[in-house]
Amino acid sequence: MVMEAPFAYTPLTPTSFLDRSALVFAERTAVVDGDQSWTYAEFRQRARRMAGMLAGLGVAPGDRVAVLAPNTHMLLEAHFGVPLAGGVLVALNSRLNGEELGTLLEHSGATVLLFDRTLADNARVAAARSSSAVRLVDAGDPESEYERLVAEAAELSLPVEDERSLLSINYTSGTTGGPKGVMYHHRGAYLQALAMAYHTRLDAESAHLWTLPMFHCNGWCFTWAVTAAGGRHICLPRFDPAEVWRLFRQERVSHFNAAPTVLTMLANAKEAAPVDWSLRMATGGAPPSPALLARLSELGIHVTHLYGLTETFGPMALCEWKPEWDDLPAGKRAQLRARQGVGNVIACPLRVVDDDGADVPADGETVGELAARGNDVMLGYYRDPEATAASLVGGWFKTGDVGVMHPDGYVEIRDRSKDIIISGGENVASIEVEQALVAHPAVLEAAVVAAPDPVWGEVPVAYVTLKDGQEVTDAELIEFTRGRLAHFKCPKRVVFEELPKTSTGKVEKYVLRAKAAALEPLGG
Amino acid sequence: MVMEAPFAYTPLTPTSFLDRSALVFAERTAVVDGDQSWTYAEFRQRARRMAGMLAGLGVAPGDRVAVLAPNTHMLLEAHFGVPLAGGVLVALNSRLNGEELGTLLEHSGATVLLFDRTLADNARVAAARSSSAVRLVDAGDPESEYERLVAEAAELSLPVEDERSLLSINYTSGTTGGPKGVMYHHRGAYLQALAMAYHTRLDAESAHLWTLPMFHCNGWCFTWAVTAAGGRHICLPRFDPAEVWRLFRQERVSHFNAAPTVLTMLANAKEAAPVDWSLRMATGGAPPSPALLARLSELGIHVTHLYGLTETFGPMALCEWKPEWDDLPAGKRAQLRARQGVGNVIACPLRVVDDDGADVPADGETVGELAARGNDVMLGYYRDPEATAASLVGGWFKTGDVGVMHPDGYVEIRDRSKDIIISGGENVASIEVEQALVAHPAVLEAAVVAAPDPVWGEVPVAYVTLKDGQEVTDAELIEFTRGRLAHFKCPKRVVFEELPKTSTGKVEKYVLRAKAAALEPLGG
Repeated sequence: MVMEAPFAYTPLTPTSFLDRSALVFAERTAVVDGDQSWTYAEFRQRARRMAGMLAGLGVAPGDRVAVLAPNTHMLLEAHFGVPLAGGVLVALNSRLNGEELGTLLEHSGATVLLFDRTLADNARVAAARSSSAVRLVDAGDPESEYERLVAEAAELSLPVEDERSLLSINYTSGTTGGPKGVMYHHRGAYLQALAMAYHTRLDAESAHLWTLPMFHCNGWCFTWAVTAAGGRHICLPRFDPAEVWRLFRQERVSHFNAAPTVLTMLANAKEAAPVDWSLRMATGGAPPSPALLARLSELGIHVTHLYGLTETFGPMALCEWKPEWDDLPAGKRAQLRARQGVGNVIACPLRVVDDDGADVPADGETVGELAARGNDVMLGYYRDPEATAASLVGGWFKTGDVGVMHPDGYVEIRDRSKDIIISGGENVASIEVEQALVAHPAVLEAAVVAAPDPVWGEVPVAYVTLKDGQEVTDAELIEFTRGRLAHFKCPKRVVFEELPKTSTGKVEKYVLRAKAAALEPLGG
Repeated sequence: MVMEAPFAYTPLTPTSFLDRSALVFAERTAVVDGDQSWTYAEFRQRARRMAGMLAGLGVAPGDRVAVLAPNTHMLLEAHFGVPLAGGVLVALNSRLNGEELGTLLEHSGATVLLFDRTLADNARVAAARSSSAVRLVDAGDPESEYERLVAEAAELSLPVEDERSLLSINYTSGTTGGPKGVMYHHRGAYLQALAMAYHTRLDAESAHLWTLPMFHCNGWCFTWAVTAAGGRHICLPRFDPAEVWRLFRQERVSHFNAAPTVLTMLANAKEAAPVDWSLRMATGGAPPSPALLARLSELGIHVTHLYGLTETFGPMALCEWKPEWDDLPAGKRAQLRARQGVGNVIACPLRVVDDDGADVPADGETVGELAARGNDVMLGYYRDPEATAASLVGGWFKTGDVGVMHPDGYVEIRDRSKDIIISGGENVASIEVEQALVAHPAVLEAAVVAAPDPVWGEVPVAYVTLKDGQEVTDAELIEFTRGRLAHFKCPKRVVFEELPKTSTGKVEKYVLRAKAAALEPLGG
């Protein structure tokens, strides 16, 4: 029953949170970036001027605007300024090299690239690689073109007509290795931001330190969630444990997010010491270990374990903590907290399904693929209807992650999606590394798998066979890939041996993973 | 740009919160009602069986299902069971008399009336007054038909096709005095529930005591908000300060909502004593007085001041507290907290407009009418396109409340909507009382206004002129209205005198309000 009444449809869009906070918390500090800071009234004005600037540069509704920056105020402003101009935000991974960035720039069709001066070289290489003209705007100090244009621009705020229209494109390394642009809609980002604010208890007294890159799922939608709460964004351009601990204390940080690998560095930093105020953090990408949880507990840091993918606006699930678990022994608590858990308050229930799409028994033992649907699932992959159709089946997003459903409805991942290596919180598609390896004239076949690593969580390890009569060393091959890939994607080790294969010729990566896990540690 | 992708549209509906909490908090207590209690798994099962029961009684999607009950588990279950059957919930004001209820039953066209046994007489009178057949189902003890039918029914859960379809109808006394059925949509209730859970910090450890009637805006949408959080609903069929204080302690209540009049009774009860756990309450309908705020502070009760109307899903606004206000003197803090404030996190900014619909200056002095729009605004009045068109202008809902906009963007109501008297938290339309008075053969004209009252907040006072040669006493007239109206609507005093009028013949109620406020207190 649709009511055709004078009732006005008000589209959900995360930019509305900035409008509200600029009204309610006008004089409160919204953004801190080094020595600079802005109030919520100023933050909104800058975002609206950024929109005006973009319109002046020819950005029309639906046009893509790329940003290449570490966690600076400019990148945060772009999360509002770009959609206020009707544009689609493409926040690029600042750890990629110029060639890789060029591929994404080309794929997105972005007409403007805003970049931080520290990444100027890569920005220029990327723009040169794009087949169409890209307008470059530098940012990063008061003399930059960005600051000049923002200062000159008139405020602009275009309305959102359809809340399921395109808000942002987040590139991820999928299993195929090609660029996959995950399309976010306004509705999903709005609801996900509310869910994050609710679950992590953000409010106007919160101080959120940006340890998580904003280019990861738009900062797991905390770019919008912290703004909705009227909290303080503390920008952090470069991760450094000492600097993080300094900011924890100086800004009395209440919230931050990070992968367990980053968390391990923080927990083990020499500056680490127990905090005497409320400090909550959310982690994801891999379950936090019992040892890490124990250490964080000593430090007075409260941990929430989240789970999600780029395709699900970041954390679609969380290990929702039940009060009755507080009384369990520490080991049991760590075991429970390591589970990926249940859908967040705006998500639909997760499923674990077999190859036919039927639910596996909720016995904590039978493995299947995790599947999700709902308002926090992407629209699809940009300009890739085939990949979209393959991943979104009947509205269900197939995560590629393999896990079990426990009897209490909590999901636990047992095996990571076969082809993805998560190194330092970054996704590395094994196939992309394999393609770089087989580009070497001596290489016949290559298979890359994850090996556990105490610092990076996982690192890529390559198993390689050579062409008859050819020779190459492991060091030469690693160097070869470093000329083609971002360094974090390059194999840390190369092993020359026959690849185990199934009867149909598919490489048995689970065999290689077991071998890689059993390798002797590297010397030094 | 609409994306036609395999992406599935997932409608927002507040029943999804029960599905989630029944999964996540299956074994935790969801509902307590006297000696009985149910877990979240049981709560969901009962709601789904209620839906099955309703389908068995012939309820089809879009049909109205009325409920007449105090704050019992059955009324709470109906907030999920009715929409799960595709029905439209009509939660009737349990303080109305049988005739009044009959008018609403007739207007809603409800085919089923679920009633609590304590209200059986009124339910039967109401059903008899309706021109179409109404199936009566009693509830309130284990032997009731409701319990029998629920036990027998199969579970049912019909999907919501359109999130802006009709979820509930909440009858309110508008300025015209006729029944006005405010139409809620699923989308608005979902978002409002999230906003309430967020702002009042509900979580799985919360214990919410139902001091606010669930028939008021579906309990300000806390029926759904507490469920979303996985908190514990503590039912309270009859308000009694001693019982409330007993339950505060027994259940370690963390949250409750109430009008200031109810709050005054609680604060002054002999059982009142400071609490040593977190107890948060939200109040609305009238600003809490400085004296009341001081008393609640002594008791350790944290107060949030909310503002809204039935037409806005209850609290569309709140007096959002800024940390920097903590350091102000108590008097200034009370003054700030008495303001109605700003839109909640899912609401659009409030406006204060002049007769031409233009914003009045934000100077804290110029009065205008409060106007609202957004996802927390009703679809319109049921079966009343004229009233709908008059109240929803260009998508803006005209509240009828008169107030000012402060320079900091906070709204403050200066004068209540002219014709509404709020007595004991209940809306009384003066015109309805006037109509009852002029029905007396001796009465020529009547005008009813609010007079301040230490117990009820406001009470109706009638100014009456008699027909030539007729005589009647004030006691006789009051008795006459008690035969026609719920007792809380009847005038507490009747004054016989000429009515002040404008040149065009309209009664000048502001003159009468001033006179009523200056009346000597009643003796005794």
